[in-house]
Amino acid sequence: MSRLIGILALLWTLPAWAVGEVTEFTLDNGMQAVVIEDHRSPAVVHMVWYRVGAADEPPGQSGIAHFLEHLMFKGTDTLEAGEFSRIVEANGGSDNAFTSWDYTGYIQRVASDRLGLMMEMEADRMRGLALDPDDVTTERSVILEERAQRTDSSPGSLFNEQVRASLYLNHPYRIPVIGWRHEMEGLTREMALDFYQRYYAPNNAILIVAGDVDPAEVEALANQYYGPLEPTPGLGPRVRPAEPPQIADRTVTYSDPTVARPYVSITRLAPERDPGAQEEAAALTLLAELLGGGQTSLLSRVLQTEEQVSLFAGAYYDGLNYDDGSFTLVNVPVPGRSLEEAEVDLERMIARFLEEGVDAEQFERVKFLYEAGEIYAQDDVAGLARSYGVALTSGLTVEDIEAWPDVIAATTIEDVMAAAHRMFDDGVTVTGYLTRTEETTQ
Amino acid sequence: MSRLIGILALLWTLPAWAVGEVTEFTLDNGMQAVVIEDHRSPAVVHMVWYRVGAADEPPGQSGIAHFLEHLMFKGTDTLEAGEFSRIVEANGGSDNAFTSWDYTGYIQRVASDRLGLMMEMEADRMRGLALDPDDVTTERSVILEERAQRTDSSPGSLFNEQVRASLYLNHPYRIPVIGWRHEMEGLTREMALDFYQRYYAPNNAILIVAGDVDPAEVEALANQYYGPLEPTPGLGPRVRPAEPPQIADRTVTYSDPTVARPYVSITRLAPERDPGAQEEAAALTLLAELLGGGQTSLLSRVLQTEEQVSLFAGAYYDGLNYDDGSFTLVNVPVPGRSLEEAEVDLERMIARFLEEGVDAEQFERVKFLYEAGEIYAQDDVAGLARSYGVALTSGLTVEDIEAWPDVIAATTIEDVMAAAHRMFDDGVTVTGYLTRTEETTQ
Repeated sequence: MSRLIGILALLWTLPAWAVGEVTEFTLDNGMQAVVIEDHRSPAVVHMVWYRVGAADEPPGQSGIAHFLEHLMFKGTDTLEAGEFSRIVEANGGSDNAFTSWDYTGYIQRVASDRLGLMMEMEADRMRGLALDPDDVTTERSVILEERAQRTDSSPGSLFNEQVRASLYLNHPYRIPVIGWRHEMEGLTREMALDFYQRYYAPNNAILIVAGDVDPAEVEALANQYYGPLEPTPGLGPRVRPAEPPQIADRTVTYSDPTVARPYVSITRLAPERDPGAQEEAAALTLLAELLGGGQTSLLSRVLQTEEQVSLFAGAYYDGLNYDDGSFTLVNVPVPGRSLEEAEVDLERMIARFLEEGVDAEQFERVKFLYEAGEIYAQDDVAGLARSYGVALTSGLTVEDIEAWPDVIAATTIEDVMAAAHRMFDDGVTVTGYLTRTEETTQ
Repeated sequence: MSRLIGILALLWTLPAWAVGEVTEFTLDNGMQAVVIEDHRSPAVVHMVWYRVGAADEPPGQSGIAHFLEHLMFKGTDTLEAGEFSRIVEANGGSDNAFTSWDYTGYIQRVASDRLGLMMEMEADRMRGLALDPDDVTTERSVILEERAQRTDSSPGSLFNEQVRASLYLNHPYRIPVIGWRHEMEGLTREMALDFYQRYYAPNNAILIVAGDVDPAEVEALANQYYGPLEPTPGLGPRVRPAEPPQIADRTVTYSDPTVARPYVSITRLAPERDPGAQEEAAALTLLAELLGGGQTSLLSRVLQTEEQVSLFAGAYYDGLNYDDGSFTLVNVPVPGRSLEEAEVDLERMIARFLEEGVDAEQFERVKFLYEAGEIYAQDDVAGLARSYGVALTSGLTVEDIEAWPDVIAATTIEDVMAAAHRMFDDGVTVTGYLTRTEETTQ
């Protein structure tokens, strides 16, 4: 209960002005903007998000979205390579960027009076990237090294990559964001520039400014700096190849001598949060919490605490995507217990959940904890701004984001049980086994 | 032995002039041509093959290559819809077409003196297709019905589709030639025309004429009819997304109440026949024959005849592709024997093959039977022409095709055993289970 009490204490101490006003506007060139006021400190988070990510890459060019993210820190017509970050730092700020399947985002945290400078520089590199061929070659080594460190030397990452590639038969969520190594090696300056020129445009971008700002001033600055940028003509809504009906169960077995803890995962495709229709996603969110979201969840309580057959067991709903997401159960068995037994343990827990249901007290408590976690995450202005960016590039609206707590609150036990039946009664699974090579339990 | 004796008898009766002279030429617009003389009857096979197939389709447009194949029988600027086939028929001929991952081919069989007419019509529709929107809509229903009949109502076809989609993680061989139904439903006239205008061009086509013709006359006719056609600029060699290293074993389980005979398959990626380097493919071809190519192969002899645990067991090497192919073992167990046991049976046979090797007599016999089968297939002029079309669109040359019997003949037992070790010693498998729903053996 210590976690619960901790969060409750935190909620009680949150000032009423913590969650600021949210204002929206759109520039004439199609650039969408969201301003989140937070006047607790004289700082600002300035973000530009592009509605493009790894799932939008041309075939054979996996990794180009992430590669371009790196190259955006090289020179423009007015700035030298590396100068962008140096100027942010010289102004007492910090900057970063991130790429996923549905988005590429750029962020700076600076004092509020430096917002114009940030916009000036971000607008400059939205249309004026100037790539030196040597910089491209050097940066390709950097992303290859990043893959070597984060993926190729991590059995868990390689395993996840393989499970994903098996889960999606047709949709590009199949492809790793970092890229397949053999394709990363072939990425060129021309590919990056083609991708850049098409997708880095005001009509494909979302400006998010959060912090100690006045929305009218932000809009004036945005018009000044981003307003003159030319949109890319003919950019419609994103259409990626969709999944055919999933009709065959699959397993994926990855073995590696360095696996510390073998585990099993069971993954199913799951509907994503849809604009104006977040009810199913809310039910699946609470289902994941109830099944395996923490110490009081069914998986954790029974498999870890009561039966002590698992070192860890959890459930995850990945629903914040532009297209179909996934619902995953994971079980790390105690030493001596096989992955087959661990798999049966998960199936046993699902059957038990479907049979026993949820009692009202536990349901309210999980709901409360989820809501508290959301509020806690939003207390950090950068985290709040980022959650807007992820949601907006997943196809949701500001109204959807603001409605989410109410949709969660309105979700009933019956909704969750119905969603659980839709998820588990039939349908196809992708079961992953991460095993230690030469281990005999698998 | 009756099959062997039958084939031997057939070989002895084949006239010396059965396999004709092969002549090659290339038109100025880049169209490649092969003439195979066969003067046994006054007929000719006229084929145009395009170096484009389902593996070259834009993402999300699966089935467009095959759809276009259907639409090629609709009208052109000079012919009405259906007129092409009617004229062929009115001239006493027959025509057909076929699509695979690497090619789309069109064939007519007519009397030799009608060759010019066939060329005139085929040249006309290479660049002059005129698609009526209503025809497109109607033909889309036809291909959807084709999918319904050949795939959706066939558990074996659906199963193969799923295994393929799991075998290839990145390469478009993953995608069914007929197309995913949900994408077929969205195929449009514009998609077909875009695909057509890019890929249906003399510099992407191979003319194959086989039969009672004079090569010089064929060349003159080809220049007359195909010579004036404009090539598509900038069409380089085909580059499809390649596979990442295969590092995780996978299984695919498809269950259907209508499955008559459950079976298990074990598939591995395998190198394809490469131009100028067909030795590995030759070894794999003979390996498949030795393991499971017929009644005297190891799988058939032991599992079907001696142990009587299989209704059927076989091995297949699929190496005639532009990119990596596959090597598959199949085992249909006798009723009462589970798919798990059937899988172990296959693994047991591989281990036995690697341990025992092949005796010289069996090796020579299998080699002889394979060669006899090839000669037999070539006695049919249409089959011979088609084998040239498949090989040429798989990236091979006429020299490769002509060298193949010698490469097979030069393959030694040691070559086959080395190839077997490369194939089976380690590496990743995709195991497929086709099961009857509610059967307890799987």
